[in-house]
Amino acid sequence: MPEEEQKKYMLTAKKAENISEWYTQVIINSEFVDYSAVSGMMVYRPDSYFAWDTLKEATDRLFKEAGVQNVYFPLFIPERLLEKEKEHVEGFSPEVAWITHAGKSELSERLAVRPTSETIMYDSFSRWIRSWRDLPIRYNIWASVVRWEFKHPTPLLRSREFLWNEGHSAFATLEEAEKERDQILDIYEKVTREYLALPGIRGRKTEKEKFSGAIASYSIEHLMPDGYSLQGPDHHSDGQNFAKAFDIQFTDKDGIKKYVYQNTYAISTRELGAMVLTHGDDKGLVLPPKLARIQVVIIPIYNNAKKDEILDYSRLIHERIKDKIRSYLDDRDEYTPGWKYNEWEIKGVPIRLEIGKRELGSRKVTVVRRDTGMKETINFDGLETTLQSLLEDIHSTLYSRALDFLNSHIFPVDRYEDLKKLVGKGFVQAPWCGSGDCEDKVKEETGAKISNLPSDAQHKAKGKKCVYCGRDALHIANFAKSY
Amino acid sequence: MPEEEQKKYMLTAKKAENISEWYTQVIINSEFVDYSAVSGMMVYRPDSYFAWDTLKEATDRLFKEAGVQNVYFPLFIPERLLEKEKEHVEGFSPEVAWITHAGKSELSERLAVRPTSETIMYDSFSRWIRSWRDLPIRYNIWASVVRWEFKHPTPLLRSREFLWNEGHSAFATLEEAEKERDQILDIYEKVTREYLALPGIRGRKTEKEKFSGAIASYSIEHLMPDGYSLQGPDHHSDGQNFAKAFDIQFTDKDGIKKYVYQNTYAISTRELGAMVLTHGDDKGLVLPPKLARIQVVIIPIYNNAKKDEILDYSRLIHERIKDKIRSYLDDRDEYTPGWKYNEWEIKGVPIRLEIGKRELGSRKVTVVRRDTGMKETINFDGLETTLQSLLEDIHSTLYSRALDFLNSHIFPVDRYEDLKKLVGKGFVQAPWCGSGDCEDKVKEETGAKISNLPSDAQHKAKGKKCVYCGRDALHIANFAKSY
Repeated sequence: MPEEEQKKYMLTAKKAENISEWYTQVIINSEFVDYSAVSGMMVYRPDSYFAWDTLKEATDRLFKEAGVQNVYFPLFIPERLLEKEKEHVEGFSPEVAWITHAGKSELSERLAVRPTSETIMYDSFSRWIRSWRDLPIRYNIWASVVRWEFKHPTPLLRSREFLWNEGHSAFATLEEAEKERDQILDIYEKVTREYLALPGIRGRKTEKEKFSGAIASYSIEHLMPDGYSLQGPDHHSDGQNFAKAFDIQFTDKDGIKKYVYQNTYAISTRELGAMVLTHGDDKGLVLPPKLARIQVVIIPIYNNAKKDEILDYSRLIHERIKDKIRSYLDDRDEYTPGWKYNEWEIKGVPIRLEIGKRELGSRKVTVVRRDTGMKETINFDGLETTLQSLLEDIHSTLYSRALDFLNSHIFPVDRYEDLKKLVGKGFVQAPWCGSGDCEDKVKEETGAKISNLPSDAQHKAKGKKCVYCGRDALHIANFAKSY
Repeated sequence: MPEEEQKKYMLTAKKAENISEWYTQVIINSEFVDYSAVSGMMVYRPDSYFAWDTLKEATDRLFKEAGVQNVYFPLFIPERLLEKEKEHVEGFSPEVAWITHAGKSELSERLAVRPTSETIMYDSFSRWIRSWRDLPIRYNIWASVVRWEFKHPTPLLRSREFLWNEGHSAFATLEEAEKERDQILDIYEKVTREYLALPGIRGRKTEKEKFSGAIASYSIEHLMPDGYSLQGPDHHSDGQNFAKAFDIQFTDKDGIKKYVYQNTYAISTRELGAMVLTHGDDKGLVLPPKLARIQVVIIPIYNNAKKDEILDYSRLIHERIKDKIRSYLDDRDEYTPGWKYNEWEIKGVPIRLEIGKRELGSRKVTVVRRDTGMKETINFDGLETTLQSLLEDIHSTLYSRALDFLNSHIFPVDRYEDLKKLVGKGFVQAPWCGSGDCEDKVKEETGAKISNLPSDAQHKAKGKKCVYCGRDALHIANFAKSY
C-alpha cells in the first residue's frame, strides 16, 4: 500500500493541546468533510451529510407534529427587498454575495444570494394574508444560505455556505407567537440532546447580540471543551417589525386591519461542528450512534487459518443485525485488521466487532466501544438486542459526559475580579444591569461577550449588583468567550 | 366574505381549448405554487413542496438501496473550473448567474451559481480517487440549480431555479457504469409510475440533444395532453470525458493508471409540471394520492339542524382514519359546503367525504372521487380500508388513463408526408438514418425534434429507410414537438 494511503488516517495534534489544529485534522482526515475549490466553502462527504440529514429528518418530524409546513422560496433576493427593513439590511449586507450578470447580460437590479429569507418570504406573505382566516401561517424551508465571512472560515463552524432550517410564521396575536417560541425551543433542545448528545443553556440574547430585525432573540448555547461557548439553534421574535416594513396586515374578526406578529428560527450544520468538538478524542471522531451512518463495523481476523469459517461467521453476524442496526462488514482483503481499527476509529464508528478464531470457537463476539474503548465478549444469542442497548448506552454516556462538563464549568460570580479570572474557562454567570455600555466594557477588557441570559437563572438577579458598574442588576448574564 | 376571496379559486380557461392559460390558472389559483419577487423564479407552497418532498424521499430510498450515498457540494463554482470541459461550458455558460461581489468587495474570480455540479464535484473526485480501492464512487446531491432561461419562464416547467437530484458516479470499468445506467433508469421509471402516475418512453437521446459533455444521454419522455412531449428524468454516460478534463485517474489492480468512467443523472421538479398537465381537469388539479398532502377531506353539512351531532360524527370519522390516511376535517364555520367543495376540488384532493343528516342517520359516509367525480355511499365499518383501496384505485385510474392516452398517440410512420401530418399530435415514430442533417431538416420543416430513440422500438429499424433522406435507417426515432 502506498505510504500516502497509510498516512491519510493519522492525527498528530492533541485535542487538549491545540484544539483548533486537532479539529481541522480530525474532520478532514476522517473524511467527514473536505475543503472545496471555492475558498471558505466546504464539501459534506457521506458521513457528515448522513448526520445532517438524520438530524434534519428528526427535527422536521417534530416541526410537522407541531403544525409547521414546509415550503420553498427562491435562492435570490432583489436588492430593493433586502433593503426594506433597515436593521436587517445593515446586519446582512456586508456578507452578501451579489449576482450582477446572467449569461452575458448585466441584470437591471442586483440579486442577493439568500443570507436568510425574511425579505423574499414576507413579500409573498403580504400578498397571501388578507383576513384572520388566513392565519396562522407556519412555514419552514430547508435550504442552504450564503454569508461571505471575511474572518478565517472553518468547515462547519464558520462556512461561507451552510445548511439550515429557516422557520417563518405569522400570527394574529403576540400570545400565539410566544407560545410558538417555547414550542420550537423545546424541539431544538430535544433534538440537540437526543441526536447530537449536546446539552445547552437556553436564554435570551442581549439587545446587542440579537438578530438584525428582531425584537428579542433566544438561543441554546453549547459549551466547548476549551471553555468557549458556541451558539446553537436560535429563535427570534420579530414582533411587528417586518409586518410593518412589508405591510403584512389582516382584517381581524372585529373588522379592524392589524399587523401580524412574526417569528423566525433556525438550526444549522454548525451543530455538527459542536458535536465533533464535544465528543471527539485523540483517535478521531466519536459519533453519537443515532447520527452515525455506520453504527457497527464487523472486522474478521484471520491471520493464519480458518479464514473461510471466520468470514462465514462474520457474514452470519452481519445478516443477523443488519436490518436493525446500520452495520458494515469490512471484509476487504487488502487491509490488515490493525489498519481497519484505525480507520473506523478516526471515523468515529460507535462499535467495533472483532471476529477471530477465539470468537468462532466459543460462538461469541468481541465488542469494542468507541466512546470508552472498553472491550468485552458477548454471546451470539441475543446479539442485536445487546448491541442496541450498547448503542443507547453510548449515547447516554456521551450526553452525560458533556452535561457534567457543562455543569462543572458554570461559574456564578458577583465580583468583576472573579469574572476576569474565569473568563475563557466556561460560562461566567454574573449579575448585569442591562446596559450596553457595561456589556461593551466587559468585552473590551476581557474578550468575553454575553452569550445569553440563561432562563433558569434569572430569578437570582434580585438584590444583586451589576458585576461591572455596581448598579442594581436586572439580569443574570452568561459571560463567555465564543466561537 | 369579500368578493376577492370568493374569486380566488375560480378557473375561467378550459384545458382542451387553451392548455397554457389553463395551466397557469390552475397552478396559481389552487395555491400549488406562486410567482415571486424574482422574475422567473417561483415559490413552492405547501402542496407542491409536499409532492416534491415525497417524490424525493421515495427516490432517495431506492437510490440508497442501490448503493448510492448522499453528499453536498458548494453552491458556487469558480469560472476556471466550469471552463475545464469544453462542450460542457459551451452548453451552460449562456444561462449562468454570476457572482461578482461579496459585501462591498469585488471577487478576484467570478463564481457561477451551480447550473449543474460536474465541475465542482469532479475537482474533488480527482483528489479523492487514487487506487482501485477507492472505487466505485456513487454520490448524489439533492439541491437547487439556477439556469437563467431567457425564454418565457413558466413555473415548474421552465423556472430559473429548480430542485433536483444530481447523481454522480465514478467506476473502474465501462461495464459497471452501464449497469448503473439501467439500474437508475429503472428507479426513475418506477417512481414516475408509482408516485406521479406518469408513463413514459425510455430511450437514447440523439447526438444533438444529448447533455453537454456526455457521450450518450438517456431519457424518459412523457406525452402531454396537447400531444407535445416533455422530457422527464435523464441519465448521462460521460465515458471518460470529464475524467480526462479533471484528471481523475486510479491505479488499477494491475498497477496501471487508468481514467474512471462516469455517469450523471437527474429527476427534477419539472415532473410536477408534467403531473399537473397530465391529470388536471377544468375543475383544477387532480393529485395522485401518494403525492397529495391531504388525501381525504371531510366536510360536515349542517344547514339546518343536528350541527353538533354531525360535527361529532365527522370528528369520529377523522379520528378513525387519520393515522392511516392524510386527512383534514374542514369544520370552518365561515365557509359554506359548496365553497369548500370548490376549494378542495381546485386543490386536487383525491377524496371528499360529505357528512350530513342522512349519513349521520344511516351510519354511512358519502364519498366523492376527484378523478372521476363518482359519488357513492359506504359503511362506517371498515371505512379506513375502503378509503385506502379507493386511493389505490384512483392512482391506477390516473395511470391507466395516461397510459392509454400515450399508447393511442404513438404513430408509427414510414413516409415523410405522414410524419408532417401527425407532428404535434403525439410521438411520430419513424425510421431515421442517424444523420444530424436529416434531424435538422425535419425540425426546420415541421418544428419537431427527436425526443429520443425509444429502446423498445429499435428492432423495427431493420430494413427500413430514413423518413427524410431514404437511406438505410439505423434507428427508430420519436419525432415530437416538445415543451
